[in-house]
Amino acid sequence: MSVTADATTYPVDQRNRVKRRHDRGFYDHATVHALLDAAILCHVSYVVDGQPYCTPTLFWREGNHLYWHGSSASRMLRNLSDGQPACLTVTHLDSLVLARCGFNHSADYRSVMCFGQARLVEDAEEKRRALVMMVDRFFPDRTAGLRQSTAQEIKATAVVVMEIERASAKIRAKGVADDDEDYELPVYAERLPVQTVIGAPEPCPRLLPGVARPANLAGYRAGRLLEEALAEAHVQAYAPG
Amino acid sequence: MSVTADATTYPVDQRNRVKRRHDRGFYDHATVHALLDAAILCHVSYVVDGQPYCTPTLFWREGNHLYWHGSSASRMLRNLSDGQPACLTVTHLDSLVLARCGFNHSADYRSVMCFGQARLVEDAEEKRRALVMMVDRFFPDRTAGLRQSTAQEIKATAVVVMEIERASAKIRAKGVADDDEDYELPVYAERLPVQTVIGAPEPCPRLLPGVARPANLAGYRAGRLLEEALAEAHVQAYAPG
Repeated sequence: MSVTADATTYPVDQRNRVKRRHDRGFYDHATVHALLDAAILCHVSYVVDGQPYCTPTLFWREGNHLYWHGSSASRMLRNLSDGQPACLTVTHLDSLVLARCGFNHSADYRSVMCFGQARLVEDAEEKRRALVMMVDRFFPDRTAGLRQSTAQEIKATAVVVMEIERASAKIRAKGVADDDEDYELPVYAERLPVQTVIGAPEPCPRLLPGVARPANLAGYRAGRLLEEALAEAHVQAYAPG
Repeated sequence: MSVTADATTYPVDQRNRVKRRHDRGFYDHATVHALLDAAILCHVSYVVDGQPYCTPTLFWREGNHLYWHGSSASRMLRNLSDGQPACLTVTHLDSLVLARCGFNHSADYRSVMCFGQARLVEDAEEKRRALVMMVDRFFPDRTAGLRQSTAQEIKATAVVVMEIERASAKIRAKGVADDDEDYELPVYAERLPVQTVIGAPEPCPRLLPGVARPANLAGYRAGRLLEEALAEAHVQAYAPG
């Protein structure tokens, strides 16, 4: 199977080719980016002295670049600062699948693995911009109304960027899928949906009188799928103009 | 800071010591196990030819051992079969935190990183038992009522086990935490809760007449936190006797 890389598809090699269940694999930008932009949490893998680490972190996408941040003192960020191979993965769990035999028990999910070289953002202007988008990508235009960052805060925050060199998405969305002959068995089977939803916002108890929830947070409303609000905010944050 | 390892605490070294925000770090079995048992999805990191991979997978805990499975043909499992260092991480996202400055924007979360040597389960009896618990840990006693696994299915399924050598949990659960002087600012701040919940079960449309949902799936009910149902099932599955 050969996949041609063009403007809208990530190149495929043995790092990112979906080997198992390749019918579930996608490499196009639209699929990969949609799964990334519907998330705020990722897991990043990196290697220190042969030991793999899997670190959860908040992240966001800007074009073909992924950004995440942390303390300048963190183990992960110190080791990535000079350009280290990394793998950033996002997974959306959509269901548990109870089948008629153990082998067909499964889950519906949408995941994406991105490969590249992670490096510390050292350019002052790029870092300043990233620290704005770290907030505004999730909550558009929020930074303008905040107490501005101090030089010490900027120094204490490390920002990492990784250009996506390879990526693959893997999607299972078929619920119960038993062997043909097993449908004749008197065994209960179901798809059990799983959703990550927003709860009722909890305003800080120390808000000053008259300070109300800004209208542009309306997308983050109780009961809504978190991924919908995140994807919508991403579109707003990076809208042309 | 020195942490003593005893029967109820994982030993601490530089692999698993929580360096950043060490006030958020926990090493005791009770905390680590509770976070693991409240999950079905983890991310596993491993290294192939210097390249880190971060792979999402279903998993479960039995004592100090973590199990996961996949195809005998998968990249991850082939490379772990002879005992490879791995890191298995679980993260529960509990909220997004909107603060009065960019630096204090954060999230509430509970995560756990486990380190050890992953190896393929090759003993036939250990593998048979693992394939039962792969289902029954989540849905107690379910395997007994299923179509039994074929020799081909057992052969096609690889099971990996990793003894937890080191582990650390990291928990943030404080919502908005601004700098003292920032509470005087007219800036809106909130904690935005996030929950992963079970939806309405979707019975397979091809159930035979009279086949009803078993009573022991009652814990998986619409609107319940997935982690509650998973933790409850773990207790039932591994109850003494």
